[in-house]
Amino acid sequence: MHQLDAYLDEHRKAFEQDLCSLLSIASVSTDGRHQTEVRQAAQWLASQFAALGMQVEVAETQGNPIVLAETPPVPAAPTVLVYGHYDVQPADPLDAWVTPPFAPSVREGNVYARGATDDKGQLLTHIKSAQAWLQTAGRLPVNIKYLIEGEEEIGSASLAPFVAAHRHRLACDVAVISDTCQFGPGRPAITYGLRGIAYFELRLTGPQHDLHSGVFGGAVVNPATVLAKLLAGVTNEKGQVQVPHFYDDVEPLAPEERERFAALGFDEAAFQRQLGVSALGGEEGYTTLERRWVRPSFDVNGLWGGYQGEGAKTVLPARAGAKFSFRLVPRQDPAKIAAELEAWLRQRLPPGISMELQAHHGSQPVVVSLHSPYVQAAARAIERGFGTPPVFIREGGSIPVVSMFRELLGVDTLLLGWGLDDDHAHGPNEKFSLADFHRGIKASAYLWEELAALKP
Amino acid sequence: MHQLDAYLDEHRKAFEQDLCSLLSIASVSTDGRHQTEVRQAAQWLASQFAALGMQVEVAETQGNPIVLAETPPVPAAPTVLVYGHYDVQPADPLDAWVTPPFAPSVREGNVYARGATDDKGQLLTHIKSAQAWLQTAGRLPVNIKYLIEGEEEIGSASLAPFVAAHRHRLACDVAVISDTCQFGPGRPAITYGLRGIAYFELRLTGPQHDLHSGVFGGAVVNPATVLAKLLAGVTNEKGQVQVPHFYDDVEPLAPEERERFAALGFDEAAFQRQLGVSALGGEEGYTTLERRWVRPSFDVNGLWGGYQGEGAKTVLPARAGAKFSFRLVPRQDPAKIAAELEAWLRQRLPPGISMELQAHHGSQPVVVSLHSPYVQAAARAIERGFGTPPVFIREGGSIPVVSMFRELLGVDTLLLGWGLDDDHAHGPNEKFSLADFHRGIKASAYLWEELAALKP
Repeated sequence: MHQLDAYLDEHRKAFEQDLCSLLSIASVSTDGRHQTEVRQAAQWLASQFAALGMQVEVAETQGNPIVLAETPPVPAAPTVLVYGHYDVQPADPLDAWVTPPFAPSVREGNVYARGATDDKGQLLTHIKSAQAWLQTAGRLPVNIKYLIEGEEEIGSASLAPFVAAHRHRLACDVAVISDTCQFGPGRPAITYGLRGIAYFELRLTGPQHDLHSGVFGGAVVNPATVLAKLLAGVTNEKGQVQVPHFYDDVEPLAPEERERFAALGFDEAAFQRQLGVSALGGEEGYTTLERRWVRPSFDVNGLWGGYQGEGAKTVLPARAGAKFSFRLVPRQDPAKIAAELEAWLRQRLPPGISMELQAHHGSQPVVVSLHSPYVQAAARAIERGFGTPPVFIREGGSIPVVSMFRELLGVDTLLLGWGLDDDHAHGPNEKFSLADFHRGIKASAYLWEELAALKP
Repeated sequence: MHQLDAYLDEHRKAFEQDLCSLLSIASVSTDGRHQTEVRQAAQWLASQFAALGMQVEVAETQGNPIVLAETPPVPAAPTVLVYGHYDVQPADPLDAWVTPPFAPSVREGNVYARGATDDKGQLLTHIKSAQAWLQTAGRLPVNIKYLIEGEEEIGSASLAPFVAAHRHRLACDVAVISDTCQFGPGRPAITYGLRGIAYFELRLTGPQHDLHSGVFGGAVVNPATVLAKLLAGVTNEKGQVQVPHFYDDVEPLAPEERERFAALGFDEAAFQRQLGVSALGGEEGYTTLERRWVRPSFDVNGLWGGYQGEGAKTVLPARAGAKFSFRLVPRQDPAKIAAELEAWLRQRLPPGISMELQAHHGSQPVVVSLHSPYVQAAARAIERGFGTPPVFIREGGSIPVVSMFRELLGVDTLLLGWGLDDDHAHGPNEKFSLADFHRGIKASAYLWEELAALKP
């Protein structure tokens, strides 16, 4: 591996330049105004693959294009499917960024930009590792198929139909995704469990137009007040979700898993300091890690109604609304919860208010076996790349594609996290450690070798 | 009065043109960007008074200027203080207006514009009535002092200090304000009671920046969720305010007042249709009129937090906030309620969230005696101007100046309502009936005569 290591060392600057080039593209999928940049990001990736002599296709979908690439065939070697996404979250609030979100800036060994860690920086490690093999050994030890979408941040609507329609073309032995976090700096992690999500938008309407709150207040039901009541009622004082049957399918925590999490030595005080909060909170009876990884939760993601401007406006608003989501754990089903939620909300809705509930996107929670040979191979590769063995953790976020790969392609997914909890994914000043970027490339390069040693 | 009536008839078009001219000025006081128009509206009024040969001053304040005008002295006649305001509410949401808010448009006998009824249109009736006297009789039968401010919609911060500092100059026998509603079309009203108001802005902060709701959700206290809980807790399921001691000073309803309101024949079904709601609601045990006029109430006027854009963003917001207000009834005190509220909210605030509560403005509730000779004089003037005697009603909104005139000048205020409930004051498509505009001018012209007949 001498030559490979040397190549990786020599190309650090070039890799970083490519990363910054990709991060400069404002490929925000949530906002229709960024359509051009979304396509530009897809094309940027396609050019990378083409330059490495791979077979590439930028496949059109109903939404944003999917980039597909395949390395030259290596007979009798395993096939790995690398998934990633080139779309990013919106960058607002813009004024909270130290440097502009799409002008990547390096400070203290981190690159700051929207998408740095989620997912452009992490995804790129698996492309640069292949580049290193191709430009040193002239070939890869495994077959790699890249599947890179542009709708991950908006629910991946086009992905499942695409994968379903291209099952044979995407056939593989295992999938690899880097879109998760290390347990801490220098503690790379294999994430074997993900929470699912059920995301909703609730819109309430009262009077047909805004009213004077003095003339009408007290006699006309106020949709903003009702919104507060409905949202407040979703959890009780113990932090437990009150939607009927919400916990029916939740698996109780295994004592050995609780012990393993406890042994990780999670620094709650540091976590609290990092977030700038005076206290943590959540469901009664669980630790912070358990609340984040293995217990379902409820969050209001956005809310609005009435007058939000400067000063005082005495208005009884005609409309109010909220975006909110439940994080789900194994055996909970987003569709079942959506149905229970809607019936429950309608039952609690007072006369004089009408409601519309929209299910934005849902994904199943997932858990992968720690005994899989692929997991073991990945653990060895990470140890070689990072110089330390990985820890096995779960993750609070959802990567819907993982359960979809299981269902449609019949494979497990290796979730290899190069990011950090304080990377500010989805928030202002998102960042990614350049040291981890390079360690990730190295671990990925070794992963191809470790996987090649397994029977396909 | 023959000559006066003729003058009013002949000048209808001219009066309407002047009204539209004033309504074209976007004198929005809440929004700092409209400073120029605010001053322009003050100057417009000053020019009107000057053209009628009155003594005028545009008095500078800490905020927006106050327009003061005095008619030529009439010895031994009573002095009337006419109050009004030239500032208006913001016009948003702009896209809900059929015609632009500051391009007055006449449709079906109504003029549509922000400020049409609140308060430019109503205020102007008392200027045009004086014009009619001055240009027909050459003099007024009473002394009139006009006090017109530009901060009514933002709490009238400059007015009380100004009135306090100019007590002698503003000395009068009675005040007159037209900034209220008729009981219905063709049922002009004298409003003898107003609710007060206590208006607040609550800002909550959780983590120091927005977080990924998957990675952190369940373990970090969400300020938007807490906001919903705090707002939801303000009222119980019976619509009763839960802030401690909120009802302690509320006077119970007098049986004769309940009967008088019931006898007004309020058409609840029509009211409901007008608002486009499927049901009304409010505090248990009270009628719709009682809920609006003589019972205190709580309304969320605005709320915000997290992601409000298109699509789904899985964010755990760093901040959330709301504007809300209580309508108060006699003997409730805004300052006392503000103190109780703040202590109560702080006590309910969970660890991990910090709060800031700002009291935007407050005003005392007020009730004027129905036996006052001024009220009786006004009733006669209205009967002559509208051809029908007024009904005696109360009003849900607050006009803080009324209690301030009582306190600082020692006078009662005649609240003579020319507007209508469905004028959409504070909402989009605000309007004012031109027929009522002219009837209001006529009633005002007779009011000067009726008041002149009273001993000063």
